[in-house]
Amino acid sequence: MEFKAQLSQQAARVDRIMDRYLPEECGHQKTIFSAMNYSVRAGGKRLRPILMEETYRLCGGEGQEIEPFMAAIEMIHTSSLVHDDLPAMDGDEYRRGKKTTWVVYGEDMGILAGDALMIYAFEVAAKAFGMTAHPERAGRAIGILAEKTGIYGMIGGQTVDVELTGQPVPEDKLDFIYRLKTGALLEASMMIGAVMAGADEDTVKKCGEVALKVGLAFQIQDDILDLTSSTEALGKPVMSDEKNNKTTYVTINGLEASRKQVAELSAQAVDTLHGIPGENPFLEQLILSLVNRLK
Amino acid sequence: MEFKAQLSQQAARVDRIMDRYLPEECGHQKTIFSAMNYSVRAGGKRLRPILMEETYRLCGGEGQEIEPFMAAIEMIHTSSLVHDDLPAMDGDEYRRGKKTTWVVYGEDMGILAGDALMIYAFEVAAKAFGMTAHPERAGRAIGILAEKTGIYGMIGGQTVDVELTGQPVPEDKLDFIYRLKTGALLEASMMIGAVMAGADEDTVKKCGEVALKVGLAFQIQDDILDLTSSTEALGKPVMSDEKNNKTTYVTINGLEASRKQVAELSAQAVDTLHGIPGENPFLEQLILSLVNRLK
Repeated sequence: MEFKAQLSQQAARVDRIMDRYLPEECGHQKTIFSAMNYSVRAGGKRLRPILMEETYRLCGGEGQEIEPFMAAIEMIHTSSLVHDDLPAMDGDEYRRGKKTTWVVYGEDMGILAGDALMIYAFEVAAKAFGMTAHPERAGRAIGILAEKTGIYGMIGGQTVDVELTGQPVPEDKLDFIYRLKTGALLEASMMIGAVMAGADEDTVKKCGEVALKVGLAFQIQDDILDLTSSTEALGKPVMSDEKNNKTTYVTINGLEASRKQVAELSAQAVDTLHGIPGENPFLEQLILSLVNRLK
Repeated sequence: MEFKAQLSQQAARVDRIMDRYLPEECGHQKTIFSAMNYSVRAGGKRLRPILMEETYRLCGGEGQEIEPFMAAIEMIHTSSLVHDDLPAMDGDEYRRGKKTTWVVYGEDMGILAGDALMIYAFEVAAKAFGMTAHPERAGRAIGILAEKTGIYGMIGGQTVDVELTGQPVPEDKLDFIYRLKTGALLEASMMIGAVMAGADEDTVKKCGEVALKVGLAFQIQDDILDLTSSTEALGKPVMSDEKNNKTTYVTINGLEASRKQVAELSAQAVDTLHGIPGENPFLEQLILSLVNRLK
């Protein structure tokens, strides 16, 4: 099957898995259930769960025990977007052409919907304990999920980003933000896939390295596209970094060096991926598509 | 030792345990670490971790594997206070005589500090996997922690409470709010204590029942004190429910019926506690002190 068709098939599969775990919109808490479901169903490429499952398959995983973690990581990703969009944060009213959660449900429910998704992710992830013969793997995976989401991961990167808004950002802090804000959840995705498949330490470590490189390349490519693409091609406003006076990899290192950096990171990621036992051509294509994307 | 002295000794012990897990205030994320530590160290009676540990001891637990969960539940409790105080929620500028987190660190960091504590709680809880010979117990305990914190627990109660602010609340919804908003974390505390000690199903269930009754009684006592105590004795403004036109158990059922209900719930809780094998007189005193408190 052609890569693009396979990718959208996988995304649809993730949607079905998520639908199984998302709450039914009934009972006293109906509003929060509805706000959660609205946020998750507002779209997204489902890259993190797909990366996770493909890494699980690469490492020989064959069960369904990975599914709670696939749903969990996408819920966490969504929760961060819901909170990012709040008036006290970026104040965005639209995301992917749809009204953001706080606009539809109010600012208080926006805060609570983010909280709800964040915690519910762990409730769903914990269901893996009932599906695996290896509780220690699920325990380690939950630990990775929390670590890479929290203050030494996504939220850590997010706080530094928020704190430096409107200020020039030194390169070491920018690197830190990219590694944590974008990189950490990708790292978690691939590491959890490996851990749940019972991969050895070396493989888990390599999976983390691949994901971190992909995350960095993805983010730098984002900076490049903001400068070189059109609103039409990208589906979101371009030149927003310049308008917001935002320090990016491109403003620090220039367009050419940035393009070179993306190519290097991408080559290193594929190289490390080839060092992992097992084969998954779709995963390799996915990684290349992420760093070389045009939108 | 006298009960009060023992209680403050236990609270100091919880503080020491939490200090071990709280982040060091250094590195790029220093601000968020500082906001987290400020929020946790702003005080509190540490009732949930104490309840958890005493239940663990009651059920024969003797290790330190309970400590990560003790720290985790207090972090989650704190995270809910940090978000409750936000301008888009209650907009409180002081709590326990100290400036609230968003007032000190800004509204954006207030949101992120709550998120950070919420996720970090699971990161800390997951450390129990490295401390126990029973990963399946830790897995179940993490599941309980998430469930009782999330949309079918604390956050579920919180969302219904927020949604009905300023409106008359029917008794069934009020009961729902009390059970989830206050009761669920107490339930989690006692259930996790029992699970980590390896208690049987019946005991875990009974622990949950005791906690739920204590939580309800605690909340009704709160409503009674708001009406009958003085600001001086309570250390916070009284008559706030009336001023805010808030439906409480007392406004629905009257003072006498409410007092009777507290006494009944308290008797039932102690009765159920006595049905649990093992003995812990301090835990019984603690439970009675919670429901009969005068402030």
